[in-house]
Amino acid sequence: MAELDLIQFIRNLAGHAAPDWLKVGIGDDAAVVAAPAGRELVVTTDMLIEGTHFRPDAAAEQIGYKAMARCLSDLAAMAARPLCTVAAVAFGPAGDAETARRISRALWDAAERLGTPIVGGDVSSSSGPLNVSVTALGTVAPGRAILRSGALPGDAVCVTGRLGGSLRGRHLTFVPRIVEAQELAERCEVHAMIDVSDGLSTDALHIAEESSVGLILRADAIPVSDDAVAMDREADPPDCPLRHALDDGEDYELVFCVSKQDAGSVAATGLAGTPVSIIGAVTSEPDRFLVLPDGSREPLRSGGWEHQTA
Amino acid sequence: MAELDLIQFIRNLAGHAAPDWLKVGIGDDAAVVAAPAGRELVVTTDMLIEGTHFRPDAAAEQIGYKAMARCLSDLAAMAARPLCTVAAVAFGPAGDAETARRISRALWDAAERLGTPIVGGDVSSSSGPLNVSVTALGTVAPGRAILRSGALPGDAVCVTGRLGGSLRGRHLTFVPRIVEAQELAERCEVHAMIDVSDGLSTDALHIAEESSVGLILRADAIPVSDDAVAMDREADPPDCPLRHALDDGEDYELVFCVSKQDAGSVAATGLAGTPVSIIGAVTSEPDRFLVLPDGSREPLRSGGWEHQTA
Repeated sequence: MAELDLIQFIRNLAGHAAPDWLKVGIGDDAAVVAAPAGRELVVTTDMLIEGTHFRPDAAAEQIGYKAMARCLSDLAAMAARPLCTVAAVAFGPAGDAETARRISRALWDAAERLGTPIVGGDVSSSSGPLNVSVTALGTVAPGRAILRSGALPGDAVCVTGRLGGSLRGRHLTFVPRIVEAQELAERCEVHAMIDVSDGLSTDALHIAEESSVGLILRADAIPVSDDAVAMDREADPPDCPLRHALDDGEDYELVFCVSKQDAGSVAATGLAGTPVSIIGAVTSEPDRFLVLPDGSREPLRSGGWEHQTA
Repeated sequence: MAELDLIQFIRNLAGHAAPDWLKVGIGDDAAVVAAPAGRELVVTTDMLIEGTHFRPDAAAEQIGYKAMARCLSDLAAMAARPLCTVAAVAFGPAGDAETARRISRALWDAAERLGTPIVGGDVSSSSGPLNVSVTALGTVAPGRAILRSGALPGDAVCVTGRLGGSLRGRHLTFVPRIVEAQELAERCEVHAMIDVSDGLSTDALHIAEESSVGLILRADAIPVSDDAVAMDREADPPDCPLRHALDDGEDYELVFCVSKQDAGSVAATGLAGTPVSIIGAVTSEPDRFLVLPDGSREPLRSGGWEHQTA
């Protein structure tokens, strides 16, 4: 497919409904966006690569959706309000015009569905695997971005949704917890937050490390997804669904630390219709461990897939 | 190389001199940046792919530099002031730890040299070629971004520097015309601008197309680089150095349209030490053509490499 045809196709996708804050969209050297007054900018970038992040037989629609959703999950983890995105795509030698159009349309549909228009991009040919790189911009009130580093001893550790087994399909269809994060940040003083991309064990340890605190997670409180149970049942030999909930990753749920009182309130109501579980506590001890159902303890180890975000 | 080691290496690169507008840098889910008050945001993204945009034997330092410089050239084309960048890198199977570190350091050095700190990123492994994706954020005073679409009949067409033959090496070492664009925008009402990535012929036609104007370029006024002359001499048979200046692309010079009076002023002084040539005029006729030294005309055709920016 001639690249100019694809660019025209993309301009047509973009053309119909430019919001008034978008001063210059697709088609010039760069996009121009009116920045919301009195807000800080939140910026994150993510690459999705065939063979690394999805199988070569994944549908174009799933690839485009996942690339967009995964990047926006990082905005959710900061409790940022999404503003806009840019996307760059390298199409491999096997990619035909129809695939290029389907992935472009999927990115567009995902951006629209998730409330963050694509305002610019880049398309290239490549000798290698399909590569979709998305950068998302969001905003927060000054000083209100939620970091990994603010967890306080005495905090409860909470998680949205249910964990594990996402490779059965959820890693391609999850909805980033943007709305949940907004509601959470409005209701509570959130001390630390991260999205579960590498696995609960690894990501909870990121919070502990960055906050210089200890951590106790209670195994019987960790919400195990049906996918984790099914995946474990299919394993030979079965291990334990909890391992999947702890280590699989790509759940894109939010792990966060708030006061015990706030945790009780949020767990009682959920966030924007998504359940919230209290799974542990932050301590001032250096140790980070998991309490098993029989009361014994084991060190919490980073078992998740090493996911590589800098 | 373990990705976490690389991330630590990158955090160390970032750690030493965080500017005070950078609220959260490398190491959290996203970066947080204080947006300059009363400015519009300019956003652009660019992918640099081994085999497509550089040869596999290019040095890591050149790859990192080019990825950064190329993206910033798009900010220059809008006359935007650079703010910050994010970079995502997919390392291929052949990439060793040393290469990953060298490319990361090269991106960092380039960002520092060009005045746009890297505030966030993503590193991944890939089965395919090295891929470096950079997104740059800049700012402009409201309504002051310079588009491709504002050229007016009667304008002069100008270009910075000298064109052609950049594949002899300049495409890896050019300095994006950020400072020149700032000075230009301060001195003149610039009606349209683009950076020469696809080749003068193609990029001038982009301005004509987006501005719905005609164009006359004078062959004998086009500044031909020494590289273009050398490249032509090496060709078998030699064609004409002008063809290289018109069609080679990857010059990353600026083509812009201003009043004849402003063009005279800018050509007389240059911009920030860079020479400026008046190479033609904008017309109200629909035709776009090149006037050859003998006075004959030929249609201006898009002969440049089709560069694929959406």
